[in-house]
Amino acid sequence: MEFKQVIVIRTDLKMQKGKTAAQASHASVEALEKTKIKFPEWVEEWKQTGTQKVVLKVSSEKELLELFESIKKEIPTALIRDAGRTQIASGSKTCIGIGPGPENLINKYTKNLKLL
Amino acid sequence: MEFKQVIVIRTDLKMQKGKTAAQASHASVEALEKTKIKFPEWVEEWKQTGTQKVVLKVSSEKELLELFESIKKEIPTALIRDAGRTQIASGSKTCIGIGPGPENLINKYTKNLKLL
Repeated sequence: MEFKQVIVIRTDLKMQKGKTAAQASHASVEALEKTKIKFPEWVEEWKQTGTQKVVLKVSSEKELLELFESIKKEIPTALIRDAGRTQIASGSKTCIGIGPGPENLINKYTKNLKLL
Repeated sequence: MEFKQVIVIRTDLKMQKGKTAAQASHASVEALEKTKIKFPEWVEEWKQTGTQKVVLKVSSEKELLELFESIKKEIPTALIRDAGRTQIASGSKTCIGIGPGPENLINKYTKNLKLL
């Protein structure tokens, strides 16, 4: 079984590269911490197979939240709100971090999303 | 004292937004794991003050490696090599993750770098 972590980022906020990287890093760290608590064995498998990370995109807050609400029932998922120091409104929901978890389980929810 | 984590990314590789986000996430996670081992009290302080992350840029591998070699003596720092699945040559050194650590200590090394 393959393991991966997926980060899903809103494109409609038009965040620049540095902002996007910072938000994605928040998502990666927070989803990993949640997964360590609930499925430490997934984290171990993921580390042993190269810590794959995939960055996907959605084009609205609605799409991000619908994905978050459905996937979090099966896989530890972190919703990131921006601290609002730069560029966008404070509290904006910018992205989610998913897992790491089994690739086939994550793909059930993300298979229609494109790479950022 | 303020705490932050800093990620420094090479611009000369011309990585796209998704690739940049994935590499930054690797740097963030790996630097955090290193810091937890060596300075767990820094990680705690950073978490209590909002887990600030700042993304900066350098324009060459040489600049990235010189920064890495000097800063790692004082602050846990992770050098990220790309797995090479997409876009750039396998093994390329793409970025570093620094800390989290005390802002004034990190700034000694990064104060001349610009935001990505």
